[in-house]
Amino acid sequence: MNPVELIRKKRQGETLTEAEIRFFFSSYHAGKIPDYQVSAMLMAIFFRSLSQSEMNALCKTMIESGKVVNLSAIHAPKVDKHSTGGVGDKTSLILAPIVASLGVVVPMISGRALGHTGGTLDKLESIPQFNVNLSERAFIHLLQQHHCALIGQTEEIAPLDKLLYALRDVTATVESIPLIASSIMSKKIASGLEALVLDVKTGKGAFMQTYSQAKTLAKTLVQIGESYGKKVKAFITDMNEPMGYAVGNWLEVKECMECLQGRNDALVQDTLEVSLTLAGAMLLLAKKVKSLKEGIELSKAQLQNGRAFEKFLDVANAQGADTAPLKDFSKYPTSKFTEHITAPRDGYISAINALEIGLAAITLGAGRMKKEDAIDPKAGILFRKKVGDKVKKGDVIAEIFTDKESAVEPVSMRLSKAIQVSTRKPIVKSKILEMF
Amino acid sequence: MNPVELIRKKRQGETLTEAEIRFFFSSYHAGKIPDYQVSAMLMAIFFRSLSQSEMNALCKTMIESGKVVNLSAIHAPKVDKHSTGGVGDKTSLILAPIVASLGVVVPMISGRALGHTGGTLDKLESIPQFNVNLSERAFIHLLQQHHCALIGQTEEIAPLDKLLYALRDVTATVESIPLIASSIMSKKIASGLEALVLDVKTGKGAFMQTYSQAKTLAKTLVQIGESYGKKVKAFITDMNEPMGYAVGNWLEVKECMECLQGRNDALVQDTLEVSLTLAGAMLLLAKKVKSLKEGIELSKAQLQNGRAFEKFLDVANAQGADTAPLKDFSKYPTSKFTEHITAPRDGYISAINALEIGLAAITLGAGRMKKEDAIDPKAGILFRKKVGDKVKKGDVIAEIFTDKESAVEPVSMRLSKAIQVSTRKPIVKSKILEMF
Repeated sequence: MNPVELIRKKRQGETLTEAEIRFFFSSYHAGKIPDYQVSAMLMAIFFRSLSQSEMNALCKTMIESGKVVNLSAIHAPKVDKHSTGGVGDKTSLILAPIVASLGVVVPMISGRALGHTGGTLDKLESIPQFNVNLSERAFIHLLQQHHCALIGQTEEIAPLDKLLYALRDVTATVESIPLIASSIMSKKIASGLEALVLDVKTGKGAFMQTYSQAKTLAKTLVQIGESYGKKVKAFITDMNEPMGYAVGNWLEVKECMECLQGRNDALVQDTLEVSLTLAGAMLLLAKKVKSLKEGIELSKAQLQNGRAFEKFLDVANAQGADTAPLKDFSKYPTSKFTEHITAPRDGYISAINALEIGLAAITLGAGRMKKEDAIDPKAGILFRKKVGDKVKKGDVIAEIFTDKESAVEPVSMRLSKAIQVSTRKPIVKSKILEMF
Repeated sequence: MNPVELIRKKRQGETLTEAEIRFFFSSYHAGKIPDYQVSAMLMAIFFRSLSQSEMNALCKTMIESGKVVNLSAIHAPKVDKHSTGGVGDKTSLILAPIVASLGVVVPMISGRALGHTGGTLDKLESIPQFNVNLSERAFIHLLQQHHCALIGQTEEIAPLDKLLYALRDVTATVESIPLIASSIMSKKIASGLEALVLDVKTGKGAFMQTYSQAKTLAKTLVQIGESYGKKVKAFITDMNEPMGYAVGNWLEVKECMECLQGRNDALVQDTLEVSLTLAGAMLLLAKKVKSLKEGIELSKAQLQNGRAFEKFLDVANAQGADTAPLKDFSKYPTSKFTEHITAPRDGYISAINALEIGLAAITLGAGRMKKEDAIDPKAGILFRKKVGDKVKKGDVIAEIFTDKESAVEPVSMRLSKAIQVSTRKPIVKSKILEMF
């Protein structure tokens, strides 16, 4: 097979055979096809997309490029969750301990911040000494002991995906539904799970900005999962406003620890709604409950009785973390500079643009401008009001935290623009938009 | 400027500024942007095309990547011709000596065979010891002495084009009109000419298979040339049937030498029509004549009086060639194997598929399968009939020449399929379809 002919075929909108997909991408993994041919193919895929059979072949090639984690020694249902990424999206740190505390195994392999969105690994690493780089052996050991482990992608899991992901990132070929779907599912299937709950976000702060894109991606992910005999449930959730009241790594961990200890006020309603729904679905797939509703109720109870918080502390401890600041937030250092964002007039908060908030948080130090950048775990934004809340002129809507003095003024201005105050009270809807 | 952002911008169909085009491609030439980002950009350009301003900026960047040949010491009009490539397309070897014999300077920088089409350099190199690799100094010296030189692209002429061309060839991004146009024109403008005649071929044996593609390319080439203050004339010519009666390097040189010595029968009518029209246009642009018609008549006279043939021999001699076989074809070696293709029934030849003939010629050894392949200069196909000719069952239509015994049977079968014989006499039209 000739790589140029395969690129041309895809460029012309023809369908590649499973053998052609396998040849092209496994040759790339073996170093026999150069980056420049693969990037041309990826751009052709961006424009022409992949058929279901092509995408399944790519996903299979990525899974088989490494090894599938063998969790057969663990005799309990293994369920994970994946989110396509949002701003203030912190559900993993709440639902993983809830579900694990009920005897379901959660082999969670997460990623880092991408673009304007946060990443679970960066949040976990804001906890002092939390180690996300475990060997497969240690990972399995933790799952046996605690039913939960929170780690990053190992060298053995879908190495071809790692290669392709890095290439897509520098060639403007990230935003392709079949490439996103096969990347997500290859990692998840290789991690040894049996069932998967997907949170596909849509709206201003999501990668899938339109509802129809999100729906296509959700259906695609479910299709791939089911073709591997996995039970998959997908939710489309709203990501126009940042989730919860905190954006920024340690600030979000703090919000999670509060929720795990029963916090239940207006500022965390959306965080709780999405976390409990996803946790409920995980319990349903694990056959711990008979309905989603029952799963949500059971999950809620684990927050109120303290078992989920206890589970998180156990896991954090097992992964080397200093858990003291998780129990007493005052033990964590604070930012050098803070600033209030206030309401310019009386009215109701009608919108908080999640994309703008995500980008502002990066400027404060909560994310990376370049790959090499270090993250400031303390940096970020806390909201005191959410969309729908009534404000009076001068009321504090949000507070920013940063060590970079030069960021204070531009970020304050950016936030003032990103927060809309109008005279009419907006209708606040459920964040759960659809379920597959 | 961030290369990824520029790729994304083009991918989304936005227009890059001149500064952005220059930054991206000159950084590539300087080795600061890797192949894999450029190939993604080229594929995005394939799908999104380039605006006129973007294409002009790319062409300018390619010209300025090297040096422009300085022909100001030569006090005579400098006119060249470029063809987009066809099968049996041999006009360069006829028109260059015609025009040069009339005192016009022809600084001809040609290419090699590409895909199913032949290349002037390969044809010239079928002449023993003909040296196409001259330094710029030797090139200028030849132009002063003989008004004509036939060489390949030097290292100094548009080196960025060379780099991009090689990358396009291996990433399936050749067939893009703005990329083709800027590649052609950058080389031609850098070669120091004042006027240019373009032969844009369309039909089964051309790269521009549809008339509208050919028209777009022709107009694009004229626009770029004129933006550099060059006089440009473009012709769209028919390339459904191979040109003339010979396909294959030495076989085509032979046809050219015959035409230069006055051959004028039915088998070479199309070769003569296109060669004389293009030569006439070159004379018109050089202001040697007042009309295209006058240019064609003057060109014809140079064939009949033997001056064009004499000019070709002088130039070949100056470029180191052994001219004996040009005057006496029996001094050239012949192929080991030959085979006749005969008419399957009585009727008229209604079509000879030029693409199929070009591919068959490659199989015989007249072209390259891979870059490294050597060409057999003797190999090829001679036609004894052209489209429109009457045949009787068993009449010889074509003869194949090769040193590869294994090629004889498959090529014979391929040719039989490529030549159509029908009961109705087809209408044979002029090969010159349109002029700009």
